[in-house]
Amino acid sequence: MIKAALSVLLVLVAMSSTFGKNTLKSGKRIPQTLSRGWGDQLIWAQTYEEALYWSRSRNKPLMVIFHLEDCPHSLALKKIFSEDNEIQKKIDDDFIVLNLMYETTDKHLSPDGQYVPRILFVDPTMTVRADINGRYMNRLYAYEPADVKLLKLNMDKAKKLLKSEL
Amino acid sequence: MIKAALSVLLVLVAMSSTFGKNTLKSGKRIPQTLSRGWGDQLIWAQTYEEALYWSRSRNKPLMVIFHLEDCPHSLALKKIFSEDNEIQKKIDDDFIVLNLMYETTDKHLSPDGQYVPRILFVDPTMTVRADINGRYMNRLYAYEPADVKLLKLNMDKAKKLLKSEL
Repeated sequence: MIKAALSVLLVLVAMSSTFGKNTLKSGKRIPQTLSRGWGDQLIWAQTYEEALYWSRSRNKPLMVIFHLEDCPHSLALKKIFSEDNEIQKKIDDDFIVLNLMYETTDKHLSPDGQYVPRILFVDPTMTVRADINGRYMNRLYAYEPADVKLLKLNMDKAKKLLKSEL
Repeated sequence: MIKAALSVLLVLVAMSSTFGKNTLKSGKRIPQTLSRGWGDQLIWAQTYEEALYWSRSRNKPLMVIFHLEDCPHSLALKKIFSEDNEIQKKIDDDFIVLNLMYETTDKHLSPDGQYVPRILFVDPTMTVRADINGRYMNRLYAYEPADVKLLKLNMDKAKKLLKSEL
């Protein structure tokens, strides 16, 4: 037997989760989707490792959305995000996308702490784009529904890959 | 900008994947499910971190299934697995469950290499149960459809938590 080397658990944002909530009254459960309502028509990576692999092999920037299903700010952003055809099309054409309710072991994905909702971009060179942020100084990677325009500008920024800056 | 510290990519089993295959002829995509056909009625963890968190907080063993959607051995096992009511009920009652198509950063989940399909159990103490294995000496954690009975016995073994051995 081997001891799993994971201090991960200690830094989990996790807390209150939606585990077990997807039960219908009839007792039949609705299968969980990978999109979790952020865009059913998009192709979602399941894990960060998978997302990085696809970002690198397809040379597309990765967008990581951290959220919680019982956080009103996450839900408000999700509604705007999933209904915005321009965002959805941009992602489908040019991004690898991943939504997470649990933190990963990579601390670079929480440059100024773990909170939701927050959106981080990762370049195909596997560099977290900490330079691409929203408008809140105390939570650099937070977006509110009113920030959709800024989010789109930031997506365009992320599309300019680091290699092309050389 | 911060460099993501991930040598992970080098050890990815990944290879040929199903990325982009879930497109219908009409152009409308079927939303991806977390179950990936291994049991739509079960509640699946999305990531290893999430699964460990639930295993610990609910004091239930974790079952991790590594598979690929274009691997005939994975598909054969999936069919038996998803149609076996006893297995599905056992999981729903007593296990946390996770299916992965990409390797994690935890090498303890590949005690004798990375191959699919393979099934590993993890105790709520976060100990990978390398002692619970199938019948193939060259691939200790592989199961074939004919091994369903052994898999059930192994699930019962995993249910005897390590703490209770003390």
